[in-house]
Parts: sequence; structure tokens; C-alpha cells
Amino acid sequence: MYRPAHRRTAAGFAILGRKVPDLAGSFFEIEAECPDTGARAGTLHTPHGEIRTPVFMPVGTYGTVKGITPKVLVDELDAEIVLANTYHMYLRPGQDLIARLGGLHGFMSWDRPVLTDSGGYQVFSLSALRTIHEDGVTFRSHLDGSKHTFTPESTVDVQRKLGSDVMMVLDECPEYPVETAYAREAMERTIRWAGRAVGHWRKSDTGQALFPIVQGSMNPELRRECATRLVELDTPGYAVGGLSVGEPRQLSYDMVEATRDILPRDRPRYVMGVGMLHELVEYVARGADMMDCVLPTRHARNGFFFTTHGKLVIKNSRYADDARPIDEECPCYCCQNFSRAYLRHLFLAREMLFSTLATVHNLFTYLDTMRRIRHAILVGDLPGLLARHRLDQNSEMDEARV
Amino acid sequence: MYRPAHRRTAAGFAILGRKVPDLAGSFFEIEAECPDTGARAGTLHTPHGEIRTPVFMPVGTYGTVKGITPKVLVDELDAEIVLANTYHMYLRPGQDLIARLGGLHGFMSWDRPVLTDSGGYQVFSLSALRTIHEDGVTFRSHLDGSKHTFTPESTVDVQRKLGSDVMMVLDECPEYPVETAYAREAMERTIRWAGRAVGHWRKSDTGQALFPIVQGSMNPELRRECATRLVELDTPGYAVGGLSVGEPRQLSYDMVEATRDILPRDRPRYVMGVGMLHELVEYVARGADMMDCVLPTRHARNGFFFTTHGKLVIKNSRYADDARPIDEECPCYCCQNFSRAYLRHLFLAREMLFSTLATVHNLFTYLDTMRRIRHAILVGDLPGLLARHRLDQNSEMDEARV
Repeated sequence: MYRPAHRRTAAGFAILGRKVPDLAGSFFEIEAECPDTGARAGTLHTPHGEIRTPVFMPVGTYGTVKGITPKVLVDELDAEIVLANTYHMYLRPGQDLIARLGGLHGFMSWDRPVLTDSGGYQVFSLSALRTIHEDGVTFRSHLDGSKHTFTPESTVDVQRKLGSDVMMVLDECPEYPVETAYAREAMERTIRWAGRAVGHWRKSDTGQALFPIVQGSMNPELRRECATRLVELDTPGYAVGGLSVGEPRQLSYDMVEATRDILPRDRPRYVMGVGMLHELVEYVARGADMMDCVLPTRHARNGFFFTTHGKLVIKNSRYADDARPIDEECPCYCCQNFSRAYLRHLFLAREMLFSTLATVHNLFTYLDTMRRIRHAILVGDLPGLLARHRLDQNSEMDEARV
Repeated sequence: MYRPAHRRTAAGFAILGRKVPDLAGSFFEIEAECPDTGARAGTLHTPHGEIRTPVFMPVGTYGTVKGITPKVLVDELDAEIVLANTYHMYLRPGQDLIARLGGLHGFMSWDRPVLTDSGGYQVFSLSALRTIHEDGVTFRSHLDGSKHTFTPESTVDVQRKLGSDVMMVLDECPEYPVETAYAREAMERTIRWAGRAVGHWRKSDTGQALFPIVQGSMNPELRRECATRLVELDTPGYAVGGLSVGEPRQLSYDMVEATRDILPRDRPRYVMGVGMLHELVEYVARGADMMDCVLPTRHARNGFFFTTHGKLVIKNSRYADDARPIDEECPCYCCQNFSRAYLRHLFLAREMLFSTLATVHNLFTYLDTMRRIRHAILVGDLPGLLARHRLDQNSEMDEARV
């Protein structure tokens, strides 16, 4: 039976004590660096354990990676960190309740690291009647219309109560495309907010890291200016935000590349909200150490499998009688035990088990792909992996092969 | 990693060979019998392994116990048999496809025993425009309106293709209440159909057991006559059907008791479609060896927990801040890792994980209750367990205690 590192007590669940890492010095350790691309293999040291990078972080929006247990995340997937959304946890059930129940770790029964966003992205994408002002952003809940304000300081406090190991500053993510003038305005505000958030965060040391977020829409000059000014804050790591908002993929790559040599080499770089399976290595080759995306889990629930040979859409009638697993080379629980025909049956019958098994496969494939990328960096083969990968892309991203 | 007893091959999945049990002799072995009640603890020997009785069988309608993997069924619940519905598997994806994929065992990746019903009950409860005639029942699919006929012989053939270890004969389950004249007519037809099904089944020996079903509505005389005439068929076991159709619970108990001394002592008795958690011991005390019911799994998905102290409705606001597990004495994965507050949060957020965890708890409680009943029979304490249970019932079935 899976037993997390917090224990049952008479009053409920409590978290065992953890060593707080030294954020000034040993938060990020680089083990190998690719001389051609600058990609790095490293380790993040957090209050809830180590994370080997580059890392893909499964998304646990409402305090659960949809459809799978923490036991599966550990035993079957070996996920070293999950992400939770501050906006959602703040609205329901609220950070105070979660704090009383041992933070997100105790609440979710997850003893490995957690990263939280600031909630800003969901305020901009989900809530109604939002008003941006210098102090922060005022919005109405998408659940009940109630009015709330997030400020750079308050979102740090909320995330502290959630107990996350890595926290994000409040930022403004403009839509795409956007006028350059507004992109600059949002970027300037994001920098001012980051300064306030970091100032507030420095007042007490809870061992929780805080990352500011580089914005600047699809303008490389703005991106570089934003990164240059955020680096002055001297934080444990830096995020690159505002991507995957509808822009062509090459632009996303270019925006990550634009700030690679500005963000400090000895701090982790988190590229937020990306990407498709075949894009992971491209971001790593541009210096990304951390990534997250809802695609592997959301696509799983919609019947879309990621495989190393391309995509597989399970509702296709060609799989009705197909005794093979989703990916014949995949060692995941789904592929070791279930046929395409069975999975298609579950999907058509709208059985929950479909979502569970598809999520296991897609996340395994993402995490395993990242482990292979990491291994290539460690053995000095990233340029080779990248070259083979780009060659394959032209022939493999159609469904003909699977 | 969980590995079932069928192996991956180049062509897909195949089932390893199994020893076929001797249905004439050693299908059911009685280990202990309660002298007061006649309740028995025994073992069923099937092509896919042993089943310790009395047993509760989780329902896997569409070839999956909703929301949980076969690995959880084995590792967390130790379920020794699951039930699948012939009507549903016949309509979608069809018994021929399932046979090509290794029967239900290969299809579901489940290497322990499977019991299938005949499909008759679903024809009467789900399908449109059904017509009962001497040959069988003609109906239109509830999925697409297509026309089908089930006969006593055809449903044996379908179940053989599904590869179930225990099969049921086609029967007619009348509504409740029903005129005695119609109850007799349905019973007479059920007996004639049972004779044809058993005759067809005897033509070849695949090691799969077949049980006829005692009907007779809520009339003990009809029940006794039906049982007496079915016993002449000399089958490996007998089922009691037509219960849980809206009748008062005492009537259900009485109908099981009515045939206890007619059904042969050396054959297992399967009471179909029952019951609530607190009813299990009552059926066992009336000679039941096998039971199945959708309640633990369906109620789980609706936020209703069964505990040994009574029911718990998770949406109740009293649990919003409750750090305790569902049942403080329960060793299941759900209770060892998650608080009522977290489960309530998942339920309100309509997260799939809620259904998974609630299903684990409810099924664990049912299976564990049955294991305790079995233990009581083995050590000669069933009358004591029953007396304590009946005393508790008056005080514990409200929510005040949990």
C-alpha cells in the first residue's frame, strides 16, 4: 500500500518535517551542459525532495492530476513534481482550509514537490469583468460571480499557505496578437509587480522559491529587456510566460531563445504552458529546464494518444479489432496490459477507466521522453538526439505508422 | 508493475492455458457450516482460480469496474471475481470481437474468475419493444434500435465466447408486484428455458459452469416449486433471481429462505443483485454464497460512502473542514491517504479521482465485510456476529455517528 511521507494522527493528516533548502546557494545544481545548444541536465533541491531536470510537470489543476491517484503518479509514472493552479485552489476550497489540512501536500496526499502558478493566467482567461490596476487585478469568480483582488503580495501569501515548493509572481499575460505599445505596458507592469512580489517574499524565509516571469509578447527586444530587468531581482529561478497563446510555434521557440543568454546560467528556467510531445526537445535545446502543459492529460481524456511514433486517435474504426497496445515499445501500465480494441471500447462506452489509462500512457510518454532528453544531455548526445528527432518529424507526425 | 497471467505476443494478447475444473465433482467445496443458520464458508474452483465464499462480486458492466483498474482490484481490494453483463458486451463490442481478443479475461486484462449474467435482466429493464415468445425474447437495442433475439441456447453460446467462468441461463424476471397467474407463467417459461439451456450446455464441456435461476416473484410456494424442478437439472450451482425489484426487504429475505433447504447443500447459491452493506450478513445467514450489486460502485460515484458505522454523504457541509478519513478504522487506500475535506472538494469539483477513491473505499468495505462474515462462519461465530449486527442496525444507520 502506498504511504506518503505524512502520517495519520488522531486529528487527521500532518506533514512530517522537511529540511528547508538554501535558496541562495544550492537550489539548482547543473550536472551536465550541452556545449552546442546550452541545454542543461540538473537537479532542483526543494523542501519536498529533488527534481531532476529537464522536467515535465503534470498539471493538477484542482489539487488532483485528473483521473489518477498519487500512488499511480509515483509508482507507475515516477513524476517528481506536479503543478497546481492557485486561482482554482483559492476560489475552492480556499488556501486557509488547505493550510489547515497540511497545505497542498497534506490535502492531496502528495509528498513530492509542488509548483503553483500565481493565479494571474486564469484571472485573465477564465474570470469575468477583470480590471487591471496598478495595485493588482480585480475580478469576479467564474464559479459564483463573487469579487476578488489579487495583488503581487497577496498571491505570494496565498501560495505560501498552499505550501508550494516553487511559487510564481503575479504577471500580466497579454493576448496574441497585441499592439507593441500594450505589450510594453503589460511588461512594465509585470516588472513592477515582480519587484513588489519579490520584496514581499524576502521579508520571511519559508524555503519556498519564487520565480518572476518574463513577458513581452512576441517581441524579442521586449523579451530581452524584461529578462534583463528581472535578473536584477536575483531570484532562485526565472519563468518564461505568455507563450502558447495562439502564436506560430517557431515564434514560441524564438521567444525562449531570445532570453536564453540573459537569464543566469546557474538558475533554472521554466517555460510555462508548453508543449506538444515533439516540442519538448526543442524547448530544452533552447535552455528550458522545466515545462508544464495540460495537453497530455486533456488529450488523453479526449481519446488522443501521444506515442513516440506519432499520434493515435482511438475512436478511429481501424482500431476496433486491433489487439496491439497503443505503443508496442512502451512499458507503461496501459501498454503492458490493454489492447487498442479494449481502449476503443472503453472510450466509446464513455467509461472513466479510459481516461485513467490514457492519462497514464500520455504522461508516461511525456515523462519518459524528458528522461531520454536528460540522458542524452548527460552522455553528450543531445545534438544527435535533436538531429534524429527533426528528421523523424517530417515523416512521423501523421497517423499512418501506428 | 501489475502483470496479468496472459502474455503479450507479437499479435497482441493471449491467455495462458488453464486447468479445467471437474464441474461434476469438485466445483464447490464447503469448509465450514453454521449449525444455527446453515450459512457456509467454502471455495469455488474455476478455470481462472479459486473464489472463497461467501463472496461479494464487484459489477463490471461494460468490461470494467467503473473507475478502477484491474491492478487496484487485485492489489488494493483482492477481489476474487468480477461480474460482467452479457447484454452490454453482446451489443458493444460484441462477443466475437471479445473472443478474438482472448475472451473477457484477455479483453479486460483480468486473470481471475468472471461471472456473466444471461443478458435477460437487461433485456427486460433496458431494451425497447421486447417480445417474449416460447423460443426466447426479441428486443431492440437501447443503443441503436437494432433488432436481436436471445434464446436459452444463444445466450449460452454468447457467454461461452465471452469466456466466463460462471454463466447464467436465460430467465424471465417479472416486475413487482405481479399477478400470481403471470408469476407462474414466467416461472414455467423460466424452467423450460433452463432445461433447454442446460441441455445445450451439456453437449460440450468447456469447464464453464452454468447456473439456472429460481424465479417465482414474491410467492414462496412458486419459489419452492421452481427450485424443486430446477434441482432436477443437476447443475454446478443455482441462482436466486427476481429480487431487489422494489419489494420490501423482509420479502427478499423470505424468498431466499424459502428455497434454502431445497437447493442442494453441496452446490453454491448465488443471490442476484443484492444488496445494501448491512444486508449482506442477512443473506449469508439464509444460505447465500455469492452476491453482486451495483450499489457500492454506483453510490460511490454519487458521493455516498458505506462505512461500518453507517452511511456518509460527502456533500454535507459538515465535512468541509474535516481532516478525518471516511472511516477511521478502515485500512483502504482512500482512508489511509485522504481526508473527508479533500474528498468533498473533489466531489464538488466533479473530479474523476473522487469516483475512483470512493469506489475503492466502498468496494473494500463490502469485500472486507464479506471476509469478516466468512471468518465468523469458520470460527463458529456467525450467530454472534448476526446478533451484534442486528443490535447495531437500530442505532447506526443514521449519519450522526460518522
